[in-house]
This record gives sequence, structure tokens and C-alpha cells, in this order.
Amino acid sequence: MREITADRLDDMARGAGILGTGGGGDPYAGKLLAREAIRKHGPVPLVAIDEVPADATVVAISGMGAPTVLLEKLPAGTEELAALRALEATLGRPATHIVPIEIGGVNSMIPIAAAAQAGLPIVDGDAMGRAFPEAQMVLPTLIGVSNTPMAVADDKGNTLVLNAVSNLWAERLARAACVQMGCQVSCADTVMRGDQLRDGLVPATLTLAEDLGRAVREARTRHADPVAAATEVLSGVELFRGKVVDVERRTTGGFARGQARLEGTGVLELSFQNEHLLARLDGEIVATTPDLICVLDTDSGEPVTTEAMRYGLRVTVIGVPCDPRWTSPGGLALAGPRYFGYDCDYQPLPMSS
Amino acid sequence: MREITADRLDDMARGAGILGTGGGGDPYAGKLLAREAIRKHGPVPLVAIDEVPADATVVAISGMGAPTVLLEKLPAGTEELAALRALEATLGRPATHIVPIEIGGVNSMIPIAAAAQAGLPIVDGDAMGRAFPEAQMVLPTLIGVSNTPMAVADDKGNTLVLNAVSNLWAERLARAACVQMGCQVSCADTVMRGDQLRDGLVPATLTLAEDLGRAVREARTRHADPVAAATEVLSGVELFRGKVVDVERRTTGGFARGQARLEGTGVLELSFQNEHLLARLDGEIVATTPDLICVLDTDSGEPVTTEAMRYGLRVTVIGVPCDPRWTSPGGLALAGPRYFGYDCDYQPLPMSS
Repeated sequence: MREITADRLDDMARGAGILGTGGGGDPYAGKLLAREAIRKHGPVPLVAIDEVPADATVVAISGMGAPTVLLEKLPAGTEELAALRALEATLGRPATHIVPIEIGGVNSMIPIAAAAQAGLPIVDGDAMGRAFPEAQMVLPTLIGVSNTPMAVADDKGNTLVLNAVSNLWAERLARAACVQMGCQVSCADTVMRGDQLRDGLVPATLTLAEDLGRAVREARTRHADPVAAATEVLSGVELFRGKVVDVERRTTGGFARGQARLEGTGVLELSFQNEHLLARLDGEIVATTPDLICVLDTDSGEPVTTEAMRYGLRVTVIGVPCDPRWTSPGGLALAGPRYFGYDCDYQPLPMSS
Repeated sequence: MREITADRLDDMARGAGILGTGGGGDPYAGKLLAREAIRKHGPVPLVAIDEVPADATVVAISGMGAPTVLLEKLPAGTEELAALRALEATLGRPATHIVPIEIGGVNSMIPIAAAAQAGLPIVDGDAMGRAFPEAQMVLPTLIGVSNTPMAVADDKGNTLVLNAVSNLWAERLARAACVQMGCQVSCADTVMRGDQLRDGLVPATLTLAEDLGRAVREARTRHADPVAAATEVLSGVELFRGKVVDVERRTTGGFARGQARLEGTGVLELSFQNEHLLARLDGEIVATTPDLICVLDTDSGEPVTTEAMRYGLRVTVIGVPCDPRWTSPGGLALAGPRYFGYDCDYQPLPMSS
């Protein structure tokens, strides 16, 4: 057992930004919330999956919304605890552990803030090993764990508790409420026992995020290539270096959707729904969801979120293999390219090295 | 105390259809649900407001959705009890009485079905004295009673429980969920104690609906004017007789909205959002919400709902004064013409008699 202290958040947030594959929301605002909560309530114990008692009540805490909205409408900081308390009232018992639903982006930080506020330990892992745009796209869905009861809370004081017949229905209903609530809410859901975590989580991803963020920072300090450092930590592959020449983006149905066009040696096209989902190099597919398509600032190695993509940015795109459970038939049905409406099958990364 | 038996539902549903002022949903499907529930579980005790103990837990049961959808997508018959049970679980105590949230249309029948299924008495009254399209448009809002916790259940087995910061927020969030759920759900909400009913309800409206439905039927039997009979029971005023010549209708945002044009001695234009809200005769306003604008088939005296309005129907439009609490400043702010976007003030009916 270790502790998450305020001084560890910078590296962790940087790594989580990279693992967010362009989505998951800029972790900056989340980092401020987590830092404030740790200053007020003390460090958050970080426990490995196998340290969690079998009968523990583990609750996933996350933000839901469009990253484009998060840029302008900051959380009140009360949402995550309100969601947790509403869920506990429904469960009739308190949570014993908090866990991130996704490691990518702001959703690495919001559960840390919640854990600090609630005085609970956080589990080192998450339910995706990346960021995905929809609530049912979690490993617990693959093992039959319901994501409801799900509590949703907004900055105004509204809460709702869902009980849905499927994890997809929970996504539909929570998303509709989220849009009404201003596209920026917190959720408490996907209650698991400790003995479900091995199958329901990707292990040690908070540690991975921190290692990744540290590697980028240290490479910069010693004037090495920060992107290469990130690629090495992630066992990824560099797909493209170039310049952003066009971004088409719209916030619709509670998501930031769009396309980006990069020029370098050839033309790379990225398609995203909050997260990058497809990369085409000169028209040929080079990476698809559920593998991670990460866009980094070429000079600094900092993650570039889809909402921050703009003309002129020099970026490097790396591909990182997803957790192998995502490329099972069930995993691909849940988060493969065809689910998102792309007329292509999943294609493994070109792992030349 | 009396009982609602299956043979009383026809008159009650007819009267409720008239009191629905074009909205509230065609009570036909609701009547079938109530009849089936009474056959299965027995008659429903009907209690007057002053028979309800002061510490009773009175729960309003209703359907939410667009009447145009109800025509094609019938309820499963499980929604109202699912909503009630979800609300009771949140309250931590069982309901002792059921009450209609609105007397108009299908929402007179759904609480009867729920009361039969739950084995509870129903209170003779409702929270509007008519039908209104939005959930916050109830007398309890005027006396500071929250409509949440509110439970919403659909035909698929999804439920959600809302806790909102205002009755308007509950409407916004429940409506968004309702649209996702297929525009046809049941709600359990607006929990009141027995001693709040005098201020929170319009009394004896189930009895009024039955008296009204019976008067229309009996007038028909004795070849008298059924519309005149209805007008007399309601102390209303006949505004127009004519033929429907045009209907513009769209189902949008969870509502059936539109306009109808009637020709007779002059031209009457009706504007509706589920319910009729404004009547203009040759361009001059003759009736506005919150007064009741009821459209009846001229020959039969049967209510004509907004979704059933069509070219060629011979109809009579009558105006009925609303409960006086609706014409207070607070009542008009909640359900007056300006709330609905009409650029006019409330105007009392021309009560020539």
C-alpha cells in the first residue's frame, strides 16, 4: 500500500492524459480538484487489486460529459461525493474502496478527489485501461457485472439513481440526463466486490499513468525524445509525425465528435468521438479502437486532447495495444470499430520493432 | 368511502377525457389497464380528502409521455407498480394512498390501476383539476411541496429515481429520460401527508369525472344535447361550434405540439402542447390556459384529444374556469399563457349564461 500525495498528481495526470487517447477530458481541472481534496483531507491510500478484501464494496467514480464542455464549465467539486452518497443510500451500505472507471484523462483524477473527500482508499486499476466514450464500454460488462445502480449528480444539487436492464440502457438514460444537467456530471456506479476486480479491472493503471508521466518529464529534462520515452513505457509503436492541418469538431448528443487531418510523410486522418477511434494513413487503416491511438505534442510529449487539437500543432501519433480482453469477440462487439459505425474490422497494430 | 368498480370506469374515463382539455392522453388504454387490474385485484376504495389521516403517505401516480405515442405504443401494465415500488424503496416506507396527479385523460385511469395492483385506496382529487403538459404544473408546487423523490419506470424494466433542486428540474430530467425510454413511462412522485391534501389537491375530481361522463351518456340516451349536458355539469361556457379544417401536429421534445383550425360562425384557432392552451376566435383571444379549453364531438359529446383531431370532425369547444388557485400570480407564472411562450396575459372566460 502506498499513498497518493499531491506532488504525485502532475506525473499521473500527464500519463492519464496520454492514456486518454485524445478523450477522457483534459485532466488539468481534475488535477486541481484532486490536489485541493488531498490538501484538505490528506493523502489517498493506493491499494493493489490483490490487497482488496473479497467482500469489499468497490465503487467506480467518474465524470460524464463532453470534454469540450469541461473546458469552459468547471465542476463545482461537490458532484462526485454527492453521487457516491446517493449510491450508498441506494445500496444500503457504505463504499469501502473507490476505483476509476477509466484511467484516461480527467477520470483518473476525479476518483482520487472523491476518495480523499470520502476518506477511502483507491484501487490501483481501472475498468478500461484507457478511455472510452460510453458507460457500457467497461470490462465489467464483459463479465456480466451491471453498471447500475448508477447515481448521477450535477453541480446544481440534482441527483438521480438509475436501475437499468442493461449497461447500454444505463448509458442512454444517464447520457440524456447528463445533457440536461449541462454535459458535466459525476457518476457513482459499477459496484464490485473485491473478488471481482481481477476480471473487472485492468490492473495497476494509476501506477502506469504515473510511470508514463514521469518518463515523459524526465526525458524532457535530459533533452531526450519524450515521445520515444512514452512509446517505450507503453510498448507502443510510433504511427506518424506531422502537423495538424484541419480539425472538424462538433459537440452533439453529449459527445465531442469529429475528424482531424495531419500532414507529414503522407496524410493521417483521425476520427474521434471524445476519444480517437480510427487512424487512416493515406487512406489505409493503421490503427482502430479498441487499441489506443494517442496524440502527443512532438516537442514536449504532452498529451493533446481532441478538444485541444488545432491547426499548426506538431504532433506524434502512437499506437498502443489495448488490454487483450478488448479484442475478444465480446470486447469488439462493445467497443470495436463497427460499434461506432465505421465499416471496417478491428486491425491489430503494425508492431514493427 | 365508496369503491371504484370496473363498471364505473366508462363514465369516469369519458369525463376525464373531457377534463383533459385535449391532452392527458386518450383514457381508452388506461381504462383497459384499470379494468384488468380491478378484475384481478378487486375494486379500489375511493376516499375523500378529509377521510385521509393527517400522517398518511400519499403518492401521486401518473403516466408521462406524448399522447401521440400512447396511441401506438401501449403500456406493458407493469410500469406504474414498478415506479411505486422504486419510490417506496427510496422513501423507506410504503405508500398508504394513491392519488392522480392530473384528472385529465389517461392519468385518471393509471392511478386506479396502480391502486388496484398495490391494494391501496385512491384519493378522490388530483393536483391540477385538469391536465397540464409539464410535471411542475401542480398545486403542490404552489405550496412548496417537492415533486421529488420521483421514480420513473418504463416497459422494459428500467427505473430511475430523481432528487431535484426544483420541480422544474425534475420535469427537465424526467422528460429527457422519458424520451429515451420511448415517450411512454410511469411516474411515482409528489409525496404528501394527508394534512397537505387540502392545499395540494383539487377535491373530488374523480367523482366529477364520473358525473360528467354519466351526464354525457344519459343525455345521449334521452336524445338531448350531450355537449350542453357537459357544459352544465362543468359550469362552463360554449365558445364555438364548427368543423375541423386543418391540424398541424408534431411530436417534439416529448410533447405533441401544434395548432388546429376550426370553421363555423367565424374561425377558431386552437394552440396546444399536449393540452389546448389558447383559443382565438377570428384572431381575438377567447380562452387561455389555465382555464380548461375542452373539445367535444358535437353529436356524441365524446372528448376529442389533440392527437385525434382531424379534418372534418364536427366539434364544440367549451371553456371551463380552472381552480381559482391557478389564476393567482404564482399559478399564472407556472401555467399561464406566457410560460408557454404566448405573448398575451391570462384572460377570464366570457361567462355569459
